[in-house]
Amino acid sequence: MKELGYYNGKIGELNEMTVPMNDRVCWFGDGVYEAAVSIGGRIFALDEHVDRLFRSAAMLEIQVPVSKQELKTLLHDLILRMDTGDLLVYWQITRGSGPRGHAFPEGPANLWVTLRPKVINSDPTPVSLITDPDTRFLHCNIKTLNLIPAVMANEKAKRAGCYECVLYRPGDRVTECSHSNVHIIQDGTFVTAPTDNLILPGIARAHLIAACKRLGIPVREEPFTVADLKSAEEILTSSSTAPLVRACRVDGQEAGMRRPDLFEALHRAVFEEYHA
Amino acid sequence: MKELGYYNGKIGELNEMTVPMNDRVCWFGDGVYEAAVSIGGRIFALDEHVDRLFRSAAMLEIQVPVSKQELKTLLHDLILRMDTGDLLVYWQITRGSGPRGHAFPEGPANLWVTLRPKVINSDPTPVSLITDPDTRFLHCNIKTLNLIPAVMANEKAKRAGCYECVLYRPGDRVTECSHSNVHIIQDGTFVTAPTDNLILPGIARAHLIAACKRLGIPVREEPFTVADLKSAEEILTSSSTAPLVRACRVDGQEAGMRRPDLFEALHRAVFEEYHA
Repeated sequence: MKELGYYNGKIGELNEMTVPMNDRVCWFGDGVYEAAVSIGGRIFALDEHVDRLFRSAAMLEIQVPVSKQELKTLLHDLILRMDTGDLLVYWQITRGSGPRGHAFPEGPANLWVTLRPKVINSDPTPVSLITDPDTRFLHCNIKTLNLIPAVMANEKAKRAGCYECVLYRPGDRVTECSHSNVHIIQDGTFVTAPTDNLILPGIARAHLIAACKRLGIPVREEPFTVADLKSAEEILTSSSTAPLVRACRVDGQEAGMRRPDLFEALHRAVFEEYHA
Repeated sequence: MKELGYYNGKIGELNEMTVPMNDRVCWFGDGVYEAAVSIGGRIFALDEHVDRLFRSAAMLEIQVPVSKQELKTLLHDLILRMDTGDLLVYWQITRGSGPRGHAFPEGPANLWVTLRPKVINSDPTPVSLITDPDTRFLHCNIKTLNLIPAVMANEKAKRAGCYECVLYRPGDRVTECSHSNVHIIQDGTFVTAPTDNLILPGIARAHLIAACKRLGIPVREEPFTVADLKSAEEILTSSSTAPLVRACRVDGQEAGMRRPDLFEALHRAVFEEYHA
């Protein structure tokens, strides 16, 4: 298959798949998701993604309709149906189906999977960023399908010809980007926002922190500001499909790019893991 | 038909209708909606609902794929297929379809309608409320499908045996409920939060304000606090399906119920309009 869609046991080409109109995702965006990369048939950091899905679901009291092991087996079985092993592996759980009504439904949650060809982005070419106020809800630690503010922020970046939009809360505290975490190197230290309710605890972020530790780069998980971002030695973003991206401009001004030694060491350390 | 579903021209019984998996509602909750009541074949305040839908869509740069007049005609045509004229008339626009990606899609937006039997709630029996912090995003003036926090707040109210959950922002400022606006009567004045980005500009709210004006009840559109709510003479909620509900308890304590004259006058004035 070229692009696969799975819904509660039904499988087909993604662009031909349909789902019940009464799935609560249609009325409330009522669900949680994960996205991982598969390289040569192996899903990177699968246990971590599955664990995070279960945590997201638990925080919203959504009962995942399969066990962790059943989910992992399903994903691997589906990958075998694809023409390539380099894939974006995406799955989500929605809070069941029923006529629109806020109250939790009686029936079971729904399990969705999509698989699409995707080569992980390891391009070291630096990108440009913009900044914008973070107007999202206060549950950004949960990987939900309520993503309109992320869609709008991404569109703003795209129109500005930029790779990502860095969000900040009142007080100029940087949180994360529209679909990536963001980090800085300041005085040789890797600084990244703490994993509170304002950011997603990124799995690429965790691997990047581990890479810093292996390399002896000090790590501080503390809030930093837009001013810190703009004056940083290096500015980095991470996500599961683009685990380490370097930025050279913020809001149209040159920034970062002052510790190529650290960036290159991190780049090697991060991507070694993917191709191990 | 008993319950009707409509999607881009396809019509069927709601629980048998399906939609493309690639509708962006499935990945991002990327859409806006309206819900109105139809009484004996007439949709109450239809122009106001249609205008608000177009405003919501414009704020998110979603192009509604029909004109206002085409939408109204469609809704009226669909109502004729139903067994009853007392209906919940629900419609939404989602930002097109395509494989998951934050960037706006190329194709047109999708138009959804559902019709279900519903008798407007005019019950004067007072209800109980709870209060909870408002953790939603800062775009509550847009009627979007990103409704997980509303789902969670409603569930909290339901488990407490209450009708609604009143939300408040830091500083104890009351915003609205999980799916209603909330108002108080204080010293004989009707007080309701102003229509900024923290509340939905409710259509039932606007009609309630108009009713106050007809009755000579002073109106103040100003922020009020949880303490104001708990010490108010009357506590009222409004939504399109329950245009005037009176509360007698907040967080387990007796509250309101001290201006039955004003409540009864408002109740008559509000429901006269629906049955005019």
